[in-house]
Amino acid sequence: MIGAILVLSGPSGAGKSTIIKESSDNIGSYYFSISTTTRKPRDGEVDGVDYYFVSKDSFEEDIKAGNFLEYATVHNNYYGTSLIPVQKALNNGKLVIFDIDIQGHRLIRAKLGDITTSAFITPPSIDELDYRLNIRRTDDKDIISQRMDNAKKEIEAIHEYDYVIINDDIKTASEEFTLIANVSILKQSRAELNDFIIHWLKTTKN
Amino acid sequence: MIGAILVLSGPSGAGKSTIIKESSDNIGSYYFSISTTTRKPRDGEVDGVDYYFVSKDSFEEDIKAGNFLEYATVHNNYYGTSLIPVQKALNNGKLVIFDIDIQGHRLIRAKLGDITTSAFITPPSIDELDYRLNIRRTDDKDIISQRMDNAKKEIEAIHEYDYVIINDDIKTASEEFTLIANVSILKQSRAELNDFIIHWLKTTKN
Repeated sequence: MIGAILVLSGPSGAGKSTIIKESSDNIGSYYFSISTTTRKPRDGEVDGVDYYFVSKDSFEEDIKAGNFLEYATVHNNYYGTSLIPVQKALNNGKLVIFDIDIQGHRLIRAKLGDITTSAFITPPSIDELDYRLNIRRTDDKDIISQRMDNAKKEIEAIHEYDYVIINDDIKTASEEFTLIANVSILKQSRAELNDFIIHWLKTTKN
Repeated sequence: MIGAILVLSGPSGAGKSTIIKESSDNIGSYYFSISTTTRKPRDGEVDGVDYYFVSKDSFEEDIKAGNFLEYATVHNNYYGTSLIPVQKALNNGKLVIFDIDIQGHRLIRAKLGDITTSAFITPPSIDELDYRLNIRRTDDKDIISQRMDNAKKEIEAIHEYDYVIINDDIKTASEEFTLIANVSILKQSRAELNDFIIHWLKTTKN
């Protein structure tokens, strides 16, 4: 049986990583997709953990070779999802979890909509987001301001998602995420359903 | 907060009632929608439990008054879902569970798609369905034969459902149903999401 896909989106500061960490023991076998990017690593970011950091040339070769499930350009840097590890995980029946933006969600839904479930994770208000981004103290003012602007644009797209998780309380948000992750794996592809119907109708009697 | 809808379909003999009974202690607050029909009660069927049994005149008056969320004619009998108890349960934030056919599913999805999740429950094969319908011994040959024909038609519509539960093992099927029921209630209506966005963007700072 083929696996399924869970797309997570939401502003930086929504608490996506914390929610995944809190839930990880309670969800079935999953593969967390790591994006590939041409932007430089920030302080503390690790290659192969936060992103695969590659050169522009290497990224463009992979585009030509059709190696990306989806990719986009943001502020002159490429961001994308390599096809091969995702296919491998799906063939092993795993749930593939993506942490990507609303553009990436649209592309994955267009390509693999039948096995895709999506959730948008958001803090309860923009004030709360502002507060959370500022207490982190890891980002400079420009980055925070850019993230606030992105959040304002992204919140308008929540209708496109199957579920919206309002991260007001981390325990409740993680419980909701656990449920969504565990139900996501039940999605069956069109091809699987077609096979099932053929098999189902094969009666041994006359 | 408004509730949500879970539509269940699948052939008689798929085990829907057993699955709901097995899962009922593990799912949140729900209201099981009871259909209204003009057909005569069968042996053992109880008014207000299996169906609301009404006269043709009464049903047609309710159609004119717009009192049905959906209705259809099957073999010269009306079957429908009264709007008022569903609205009341939704306003109380409950999950409303419907056991209806593929026509009913289409009508509810068309009217209330944003808060609707659906699952098709099926035995693993048509042979197994035949076996289950025959060991019941509650129905005569004609009804069994009619149910088998309906099942063959309905199985082709499984692509229209969010989830397909293959009831091979009642424990696994009930666990899957429990997950689906508990995640269904997380669906938010378009109106709720619009209100959330407006509220979300109201910053107290400048």
